[in-house]
Amino acid sequence: MSFLLKSTRARAEVWKPLFQKALPDLAFHIWPETGNPEDVRFMAAWEPPADLLQRFPNLEVLFSVGAGVDQFDMSAIPEHVTIIRMIEPGLTDGMVDYVLWATLTLHREILTYLAQQKQHVWKTRHNKIASQRRVGVMGLGTLGTPVARALAHTGFNCRGWSRSRHAVPDVTCYAGGEELDAFLAETDILVCLLPLTDATRGMLNADLFAKLPKGAQVINVARGAHLVTQDLLAALDCGQIGAAILDVTDPEPLPAESPLWAHPNVLVTPHVASNSQTETAGRVLLDTVQRYLAGERDFPSKVDRSKGY
Amino acid sequence: MSFLLKSTRARAEVWKPLFQKALPDLAFHIWPETGNPEDVRFMAAWEPPADLLQRFPNLEVLFSVGAGVDQFDMSAIPEHVTIIRMIEPGLTDGMVDYVLWATLTLHREILTYLAQQKQHVWKTRHNKIASQRRVGVMGLGTLGTPVARALAHTGFNCRGWSRSRHAVPDVTCYAGGEELDAFLAETDILVCLLPLTDATRGMLNADLFAKLPKGAQVINVARGAHLVTQDLLAALDCGQIGAAILDVTDPEPLPAESPLWAHPNVLVTPHVASNSQTETAGRVLLDTVQRYLAGERDFPSKVDRSKGY
Repeated sequence: MSFLLKSTRARAEVWKPLFQKALPDLAFHIWPETGNPEDVRFMAAWEPPADLLQRFPNLEVLFSVGAGVDQFDMSAIPEHVTIIRMIEPGLTDGMVDYVLWATLTLHREILTYLAQQKQHVWKTRHNKIASQRRVGVMGLGTLGTPVARALAHTGFNCRGWSRSRHAVPDVTCYAGGEELDAFLAETDILVCLLPLTDATRGMLNADLFAKLPKGAQVINVARGAHLVTQDLLAALDCGQIGAAILDVTDPEPLPAESPLWAHPNVLVTPHVASNSQTETAGRVLLDTVQRYLAGERDFPSKVDRSKGY
Repeated sequence: MSFLLKSTRARAEVWKPLFQKALPDLAFHIWPETGNPEDVRFMAAWEPPADLLQRFPNLEVLFSVGAGVDQFDMSAIPEHVTIIRMIEPGLTDGMVDYVLWATLTLHREILTYLAQQKQHVWKTRHNKIASQRRVGVMGLGTLGTPVARALAHTGFNCRGWSRSRHAVPDVTCYAGGEELDAFLAETDILVCLLPLTDATRGMLNADLFAKLPKGAQVINVARGAHLVTQDLLAALDCGQIGAAILDVTDPEPLPAESPLWAHPNVLVTPHVASNSQTETAGRVLLDTVQRYLAGERDFPSKVDRSKGY
């Protein structure tokens, strides 16, 4: 029985000794070294190797090393393989920090001050307080929920929207297509933390922007393909959207010729909102494998193939 | 008996009806209209008029409309006049938001991403998590204490330093000159929220910077005169200080020719970290006047002239 890791050297260096100490009978292989492929029961990867079933006929669990699984070609993963996403405290904490930073940046009109600094201009604006700013989080999963709670704790007037009904303390929760318009109508700063599925691809588009209050601001920390870039540029140019902070783009890396780079009301960061933290992610991975070996099959991080996340 | 307000029109428009409704017997004058100067018992101002004693011989309480009183010429204010600073929730909340924003900006290396955006460069850096970042708050008064608590709540490894001993939950507190070096030695991001006094003027200087870990970052949200600008520029150039966010400068407005504007590792905002919020500040002012009229004399916001704050 073996565990195969196809990821970075940094992770391999930390995770291998962790697994070997806790599970000495489970061989730990680092891609491209695989040992006997028939022994591989567990695999952790961002992008798994091709011909998964043919090469690793006894694979039981495939772990994504990130929070999303949209990079997986589901049709190439046999139905009997359990797919598990990375839910670990380091990834969550990083996302909370980033969204808090991005929301405060828009709330405090920092893009205006950055533009003034370029011109050496000292011009004061009266600041609003956080409770006067309505922030809406789309997606209330393992990242969206702690993000919404942190925004509410910081004092923002916070609401959330998700496909199915959720309850989050101090956050007004909306659910399903029929409540989406009401959610959008009272959102000054929109945070996208949706999973990327066929239903959410391109969801940040002209129709959606038109339902936000004029001058609303947008933060995308989910996937680049949630956003229709041309629609965002048009909405920025007519003032329907006031500003945007994008940590994800389509494609990535964002090409040098993209108009997003030089737009005065757009801030781009290179998909750094959150990384799995090697130490905590390794412990979560090990814990999950141990529980699986003990017979547990029901994990909150298990992917529901019918939903795609 | 009368109240004289020397401030902005926006404040006057909100505060006058508030006072007139609650205290109909207290005449409310808006500078330069003063009524009979001998009737003025209360005055609220950023900068009081000259010849205070001669013009307003019966003045009992002078309110600053800001958190600081360093703009007051104490020698021109008669000893028997009670001086009260503005401590109101809107001012505190704004400062907490700003410092949280500034700390997250430095923590997440946003200045690097801003520079990359200018060059249309997509280059990822692995993010640290907040608990790996040591933040030190200088000044644990009515602004510094809630700021330190919010930083600790956000997950930062937070410590504070003040002249006299304070206790703040989840914040390691240092006090007095003898503990300053120990505080500085373990501070990666330094936040200055000190009052400006003869003892603190120019305190952010080359000596202090040399006691921080190499590459430490600085946030000044107190007064421009706390910072020796030339020492900061030298420390930035040799790498002792990695970056700075300055909301206050000396002088203000910052002259267009200041090298701070164009420095790649400096972010300047025009003294906007926090404003008194007209509504909440008005209520605090009214409440204090009512309590004073009822005989109360001991206010936490009362200035100790021996300390200068």
